[in-house]
Amino acid sequence: MDISAQINQFLKNDFPQVRSQVEKVGERYSLIRHQVIEADLRPGGTVSGPTLFAIADLALYVAILGEIGMQPLAVTTNLNINFLNKPLPAKDLLGECRLIKVGKSLIMGDVFIYSEGQEQPVVHATGTYSIPPKRI
Amino acid sequence: MDISAQINQFLKNDFPQVRSQVEKVGERYSLIRHQVIEADLRPGGTVSGPTLFAIADLALYVAILGEIGMQPLAVTTNLNINFLNKPLPAKDLLGECRLIKVGKSLIMGDVFIYSEGQEQPVVHATGTYSIPPKRI
Amino acid sequence: MDISAQINQFLKNDFPQVRSQVEKVGERYSLIRHQVIEADLRPGGTVSGPTLFAIADLALYVAILGEIGMQPLAVTTNLNINFLNKPLPAKDLLGECRLIKVGKSLIMGDVFIYSEGQEQPVVHATGTYSIPPKRI
Amino acid sequence: MDISAQINQFLKNDFPQVRSQVEKVGERYSLIRHQVIEADLRPGGTVSGPTLFAIADLALYVAILGEIGMQPLAVTTNLNINFLNKPLPAKDLLGECRLIKVGKSLIMGDVFIYSEGQEQPVVHATGTYSIPPKRI
Repeated sequence: MDISAQINQFLKNDFPQVRSQVEKVGERYSLIRHQVIEADLRPGGTVSGPTLFAIADLALYVAILGEIGMQPLAVTTNLNINFLNKPLPAKDLLGECRLIKVGKSLIMGDVFIYSEGQEQPVVHATGTYSIPPKRI
Repeated sequence: MDISAQINQFLKNDFPQVRSQVEKVGERYSLIRHQVIEADLRPGGTVSGPTLFAIADLALYVAILGEIGMQPLAVTTNLNINFLNKPLPAKDLLGECRLIKVGKSLIMGDVFIYSEGQEQPVVHATGTYSIPPKRI
Repeated sequence: MDISAQINQFLKNDFPQVRSQVEKVGERYSLIRHQVIEADLRPGGTVSGPTLFAIADLALYVAILGEIGMQPLAVTTNLNINFLNKPLPAKDLLGECRLIKVGKSLIMGDVFIYSEGQEQPVVHATGTYSIPPKRI
Repeated sequence: MDISAQINQFLKNDFPQVRSQVEKVGERYSLIRHQVIEADLRPGGTVSGPTLFAIADLALYVAILGEIGMQPLAVTTNLNINFLNKPLPAKDLLGECRLIKVGKSLIMGDVFIYSEGQEQPVVHATGTYSIPPKRI
């Protein structure tokens, strides 16, 4: 089973509420796909802030899992999110993360979210996860 | 109808997915209450990041509505969120916002989220909304 | 020697480039005063961004020293700064910090900077310091 | 005179305290070089936070000038800075900015700062400038 499939399986077991799919992961990078459903939308047809937050946070988490393995106890400590352009309601959202610093206790990265096929990003976010110390 | 009731009514009409209630609003301040339900929880009993993001973002929006009136087109441009302590799964979450700058086109404030009855905050966030220009 | 005087002495020895003075510190709080000099100003008479950053960062550091004692190895990991209003060039700047979370390895707080005598803040910032582990 | 030289000239006239040099600018991008001097250093040989802040802020400003022309009244509204690795005191610092959103009133971008010749970044920052409306 490749690493994307492993992470999809891990998320399905440990985070059953996650509805996005991992498409690529590795070398401090992740790409996830989120199919927009009715529950993600705000009146007027825009995607809700919490949905976009969830995609940014997940893309970061997936890239981290790709570095350190399946770690259910890694937690977000900070996420700074900029909302740049309105997403298209009928398109999938793609979240693309690259890790910027992989430390022993803190991992930091950034995420772009795009409506599929669009050039201008919907969101840019930076975030930090705290990684629990390894037991010896 | 007092201003809290007005905003609750506005949210119910325009943002039917919002499940939090406005408790107080006015003088650049808001207090909202969020009853934690099963769908808000992560395995292990902690409240999900997107739920906490949604509370922070809403507290800010409600405080802004208290300043400028019912404005469906105000949008978040930036939200910086720090996750500080684990919330208690069986307690309501309270989001308390104070506006720090009320400009013509940008309004900025901060939010603390607490599990009811706890002293240590669960979340601190700062955020900025963009306010559409008034038509003349 | 009271704690403010101790920290002023520590800063003078270990951070000789610091030009601000500690006025109050304690209970997860600090107040520092910065006399604006020519070198702090931008053409047009506004205080430069790096000067305001330095005040925010120092207020946070001083509040942390008040909690954990003189620790030269505590370092800023993140600082998020919002520039809200123009400072007055002829007034001292006051930086007021309160710590929001005091953890073992990370301490987080926020800072307001004011031109003395003004009600509207010049800057709001939130920041996190990493604290080195205690040797045993 | 090419655009880098124009911006260097503009900075020299309007921001005489700036000590960094523009190396490249264009297509929503800038690269600036900062020679580290004694006054930039902290005891222990690390570069001070305000110096790094100044480089991040300037790289952003230069990329913006490359887009909109010489605009002395553009001002930073937000800068979120992550300190990732210690810079080398004897190397020049390079600040590399790419603009992420170029709006009419707000421009947002991110910046990496490197010690010359090092692969790991010293700083990652995201920032937003407010652009004054054009007079008609």
